[in-house]
Amino acid sequence: MAHDFDVLTETALALADVAGTVIRPYFRVPIGSDDKADQSPVTIADRMAERVMRAVLAERHPEHGILGEEFGLDNEGAGYRWTLDPIDGTRAFITGRPVFGTLIALTYDGEPVLGVIDQPVTGERWLGVAGRPTLFRSAATGVMRPIGTRRCAVLADADLSCTSVEMLEDAPRQVWGRLKDSVKRVSWGGDCYAYGLLAMGYIDVIAECAMKPWDWAALVPVVEGAGGRMTDWNGDPLRDGGDGTVLAVGDPALLNDAVKCLRA
Amino acid sequence: MAHDFDVLTETALALADVAGTVIRPYFRVPIGSDDKADQSPVTIADRMAERVMRAVLAERHPEHGILGEEFGLDNEGAGYRWTLDPIDGTRAFITGRPVFGTLIALTYDGEPVLGVIDQPVTGERWLGVAGRPTLFRSAATGVMRPIGTRRCAVLADADLSCTSVEMLEDAPRQVWGRLKDSVKRVSWGGDCYAYGLLAMGYIDVIAECAMKPWDWAALVPVVEGAGGRMTDWNGDPLRDGGDGTVLAVGDPALLNDAVKCLRA
Repeated sequence: MAHDFDVLTETALALADVAGTVIRPYFRVPIGSDDKADQSPVTIADRMAERVMRAVLAERHPEHGILGEEFGLDNEGAGYRWTLDPIDGTRAFITGRPVFGTLIALTYDGEPVLGVIDQPVTGERWLGVAGRPTLFRSAATGVMRPIGTRRCAVLADADLSCTSVEMLEDAPRQVWGRLKDSVKRVSWGGDCYAYGLLAMGYIDVIAECAMKPWDWAALVPVVEGAGGRMTDWNGDPLRDGGDGTVLAVGDPALLNDAVKCLRA
Repeated sequence: MAHDFDVLTETALALADVAGTVIRPYFRVPIGSDDKADQSPVTIADRMAERVMRAVLAERHPEHGILGEEFGLDNEGAGYRWTLDPIDGTRAFITGRPVFGTLIALTYDGEPVLGVIDQPVTGERWLGVAGRPTLFRSAATGVMRPIGTRRCAVLADADLSCTSVEMLEDAPRQVWGRLKDSVKRVSWGGDCYAYGLLAMGYIDVIAECAMKPWDWAALVPVVEGAGGRMTDWNGDPLRDGGDGTVLAVGDPALLNDAVKCLRA
């Protein structure tokens, strides 16, 4: 299948633009500590952003499927499917940290072929397209330029990252500590933003779990187009219906040793 | 003692300006995973920024004392002492997260009377001055405006934050879990930036440890000028030579219950 990536990329970036326009006004809106979750600014922004993205897709690619965190699956049998997570990093959003992101993925027959990580507050954006180098738009320059992961051949030199300790409590097996004990340093927080930093060569390994397809599908083209690899904790390809574990390495040479730590 | 806060604030903001100018070019400079810590961009930026801040102080207030993380204590007997941490959040800086900060505190006879948290990449800045409302400069507007903590009278409604799990391993007692089990939600990462978010009403409680005076002195006027409180885990005032535990609450009504969790 030869994909028309110029058209598809244009759509993906349009989705990121409209989502950002919807989300930005809700960031750092005063929130009462006792506000109900279903009326919180993050919930409203999440739903509105998914709705506008769905509207753009209905207009441009009515034949494509859509899987969104908020409104489920449309057009199940389509080869192309857009997988949308308007606000990945709800806790970061709620606590005012500009390290959440809008995730936009396009899969073809289940395979991620295009991914966008967009940070609508800082203006940072990552674009990954199968077979092409990953691009990053920095807040300072506004220009998209190719980025790559860094070399890091041994775990003892590696910077490991994970969003939260609580996430690890839901892991299918308690093996994360083995990985942690093998690396140089750990940093916490980050959600999708951390995968963007891995793609730029500032983080070497990320191991997370309890991840849904809308959490990881957009990350795969970004990380792999930058020279990295993404698998589950067994080293197998990520797939819808998997166990929710996700492993990303910047240097493919790290994959085997990381999997050795994480495998049952 | 009547402090000339207009002059002192001007100095503090000049220190933040020069530190930011020095630090920015070192952020997201490519780093090898096996680079030595003492030649890393963060170390160079840290030292250079402290040197330029010391130079500004030597010119403006040669009679004041200076305590810096990198170059120690000058002019020990002075009533006024500037306490400087050019890059608070080394891991955030190294991994490319724009949530580290430059911390500038002025103490008088050991009491913090002025504090600045500056994020030189996003352009965000918090200014706390004893007896005055805390001000925040947002990246979007560039204007300083008063901010305040939010009401949150019970731990069950509270957003708790902490920089890292590893920090807690160095706590004088393993009681943090009692606090965690009492709150609504936990978020990780953040360093000084999280205290800025607490001062703005997005986080309710922060409990950390292994903190040095240059880690907390600047935070006290920022948090307290926004309506919050800062103490150690016993509820006692923070002091040089304390046990390194730090507790910040946005709503003073939370203090007693948080201390109950954290006290031995």
